Amino acid sequence: MIRIGLDIGGTGIQIGAVNEENRIIKEASIPTRTDLSFAEQVDQMVACIKELLNPAENPELTMENVVSIGAGIPGLASSDGVVINCTNLGWRHVPLREEFQTRISKPFFVDNDANVAALAESIAGVSAGSSSSIFITLGTGIGSGIIIDGKIWKGYHGIGGELGHMILELDGQPCSCGNRGCLEQYCSATALIRMAREQVAVHPDSLMLKLAEGDARKINAKIVFDAKREGDPAAEKIFRRYVKYMGQMIANLVNFIDPEIIVLGGGVSKAGSLLLDAVRKEFVNYVLYDERPQPRIEIASLSSEAGIIGAAMLS
Amino acid sequence: MIRIGLDIGGTGIQIGAVNEENRIIKEASIPTRTDLSFAEQVDQMVACIKELLNPAENPELTMENVVSIGAGIPGLASSDGVVINCTNLGWRHVPLREEFQTRISKPFFVDNDANVAALAESIAGVSAGSSSSIFITLGTGIGSGIIIDGKIWKGYHGIGGELGHMILELDGQPCSCGNRGCLEQYCSATALIRMAREQVAVHPDSLMLKLAEGDARKINAKIVFDAKREGDPAAEKIFRRYVKYMGQMIANLVNFIDPEIIVLGGGVSKAGSLLLDAVRKEFVNYVLYDERPQPRIEIASLSSEAGIIGAAMLS
Repeated sequence: MIRIGLDIGGTGIQIGAVNEENRIIKEASIPTRTDLSFAEQVDQMVACIKELLNPAENPELTMENVVSIGAGIPGLASSDGVVINCTNLGWRHVPLREEFQTRISKPFFVDNDANVAALAESIAGVSAGSSSSIFITLGTGIGSGIIIDGKIWKGYHGIGGELGHMILELDGQPCSCGNRGCLEQYCSATALIRMAREQVAVHPDSLMLKLAEGDARKINAKIVFDAKREGDPAAEKIFRRYVKYMGQMIANLVNFIDPEIIVLGGGVSKAGSLLLDAVRKEFVNYVLYDERPQPRIEIASLSSEAGIIGAAMLS
Repeated sequence: MIRIGLDIGGTGIQIGAVNEENRIIKEASIPTRTDLSFAEQVDQMVACIKELLNPAENPELTMENVVSIGAGIPGLASSDGVVINCTNLGWRHVPLREEFQTRISKPFFVDNDANVAALAESIAGVSAGSSSSIFITLGTGIGSGIIIDGKIWKGYHGIGGELGHMILELDGQPCSCGNRGCLEQYCSATALIRMAREQVAVHPDSLMLKLAEGDARKINAKIVFDAKREGDPAAEKIFRRYVKYMGQMIANLVNFIDPEIIVLGGGVSKAGSLLLDAVRKEFVNYVLYDERPQPRIEIASLSSEAGIIGAAMLS
């Protein structure tokens, strides 16, 4: 028994066969081809799956053994397998399940990539065994997934889980969504980099600028954390401000949802214990019942394979 | 079969017997006596319950018919029936269940009053039959309760559901909890009144001040809404600002949780359709997927009896 997971991204599609121990036993990837029609894109994915299923390589790898196929997308999908919106791939209201099932007659599921990663962590990662978890990806934007009793909480109308667009500041920073003050503008990698660039503009002697070879446009999250580790005062200032925002975001989740565990993933989470230790200390300052036991805050334990494993686990 | 519900408030305790149709068949009340010891307070409540159970009046009213007893408190309780904090009654870490059960040997439950009201609405009120709902009390402060599949979501550590202390504005208005920018400082009746008082200080010709007999300290939520209905420009300004805050709070809930229904209760909700219609229009402006179906927003349908009915429904 195997399950197929597709991690559909803006530049590439990772496809893997996952066994009953939640391990990827074979993996392949194809480029994302936005120049192709939707039907041709699905053809391309199906061809890759069929190639993957080579029993000569591993007797488990047969179409008969495939229980289900799941896909994670950077966008919104409805529970009946229609992709409502997936900007990177140019998809709007496309029937992904239907298109797949005319080619491979297996149960097919599709969900948002942050939900998929949240599910993967809750089954095979750091939140495994928890009764409730919230997964947050700190990347270009902010994605999130809520897992309750092993299931993805998508909301009644399927429009929930958009933590990044909760408002943290009235009339705050303008956001790409058209609103102001969205969390994404304070806690994403993009926000951290924006703050660092503003800082080096007034502190051109900052180590951050040196690490970016004198070009503020080359500053990334890693540079901020590296400079902070070296004691650079400008980086220290940005770090403290970022940790404050992170602490307030997490406290909001604790005050309202109080999950068993909150998992941090995405590029920024690679800062590891430097960020984790600071955030763990910070968020309690904003929790109403701060003397009670608090949710665990952890860094995601699965790396890029989360996308395939989580997609394969969809049901 | 009947259930007993206690609505324990800072000034009075409402006690009722609730039948299988979720109707209160008999009700009584006693004053809250903070001068008594905790054991004496429980004695007082138990005496009231025993008096309530008069089969001569209604044959259903017997102790044998009592399935369970539940209490709603303006504070925090743990799942093992210990009241962790209930400032109005002076309770801290008191074993309410244990104390009750030494006097009446029946299943006993205790929960926060906003959770209790949320449960009542979801069983016998406007959110009855919904698979998920969020109830918000707009009063002196802001209370909230989340109901999922008929059960109160209390969070893993029992510290969730505190919507009023989620941060809506970084470094915003100072809150009684010690933090800044809590929702309670923007969407409660207290917040509305604060804004109105600030407004009449600069617009002493406002109808709001006239309705308050010239005394800004007498301004309440009803006066703001009455003046707005009469077209008072200062009240109109406050109303629009309040609706904007309400819209952003509700959009945050939609973007993250997306419940089937959001129910507004508490004093401010008595403004009825004036407030409801404006809020329904406003929140969608801040929702990420604004072209998708949205949660229903409704005014609570149970009035003061929600506290007894919800407490009786605890399990």
